[in-house]
Amino acid sequence: MAGNIKMPAKRADAARNRDKILAAAREAFADPEAEVSMAEVARRAGVGMATLYRNFPGRRELLEALYSEVIDGILAAAEEGSGETAGERFTTWLRAFLDFSTSKRQLVAELLVEDDDRSVFNENRARVMAAGEPLLAAARKSGEVRADLTLAQILELVIAVGKIRGDAAFVEPILDATLQGLRPPG
Amino acid sequence: MAGNIKMPAKRADAARNRDKILAAAREAFADPEAEVSMAEVARRAGVGMATLYRNFPGRRELLEALYSEVIDGILAAAEEGSGETAGERFTTWLRAFLDFSTSKRQLVAELLVEDDDRSVFNENRARVMAAGEPLLAAARKSGEVRADLTLAQILELVIAVGKIRGDAAFVEPILDATLQGLRPPG
Repeated sequence: MAGNIKMPAKRADAARNRDKILAAAREAFADPEAEVSMAEVARRAGVGMATLYRNFPGRRELLEALYSEVIDGILAAAEEGSGETAGERFTTWLRAFLDFSTSKRQLVAELLVEDDDRSVFNENRARVMAAGEPLLAAARKSGEVRADLTLAQILELVIAVGKIRGDAAFVEPILDATLQGLRPPG
Repeated sequence: MAGNIKMPAKRADAARNRDKILAAAREAFADPEAEVSMAEVARRAGVGMATLYRNFPGRRELLEALYSEVIDGILAAAEEGSGETAGERFTTWLRAFLDFSTSKRQLVAELLVEDDDRSVFNENRARVMAAGEPLLAAARKSGEVRADLTLAQILELVIAVGKIRGDAAFVEPILDATLQGLRPPG
């Protein structure tokens, strides 16, 4: 049947549209000046409103899809675990966590407004914590991270540093000092 | 003349009223729930609106007086310079800076809205920096603080940590780690 031949092409088209929409939305939310409406996302993606709404029934579903991408990136960085020592692997992951979370700050702010029950946060927070805990445990065991900070405290600190405004030359030494402060004292 | 006898009492009264108003305003702004109007300040201080406006022609003048108190506290802490070593004196001052700036956060937020030209900030920022620079220079000279951070970067970091929410048991180890991170690496 002709349907058997046409369907894969249709599915590929649909996947392409979804990717285009997500890329456009990512770009739009990364622009601090932009007022991101569904119409604006459709315009940037070059798709019609019907296509947009077929993929994402509402703004919230779109935000959640983008947020999932951020979380997936943080989880993937934990999997990769690049670094020579356990301490390096942990701090490399913290840097990845920082990069992902700052690049999506606008998005998270929007979701905080949209998501009244915060379930999307609590669920994903648990996944991020679960990914980071073994890295922290290993870095503590190797004596590279102080024992008096929990992962929650360390992530709060990294998030706080991530909110400091300034170019890389200003912020990078601050982050360096912060990560150094995680080492056991003495 | 009777005026000579009455005037000092009047002045003492006026000073007392001013102090009562400042104390009431301080308390009101420290309460995150409170909507702080001039009427609310007068009510808390137990003075009439005429007395309030005689002391502070407007809300902005009142905010600026409170803000000056914060700055004076930070400058006084730099003068005192308690601690055994230059490094300790610097970190003691950073802790005082943090205490003052967090206790007056609401106030500063209000002033940011009121003060469009930001001159009150720029002027006082310069005074705080001038008070902290000698402490930082001494702590660097004694090898207790890393050389790649400016005072501006260090204060941004301390302010960022000051914004982390949580009780003392949660925040204090984070601040400890942060201050430890200011030491020269290696």
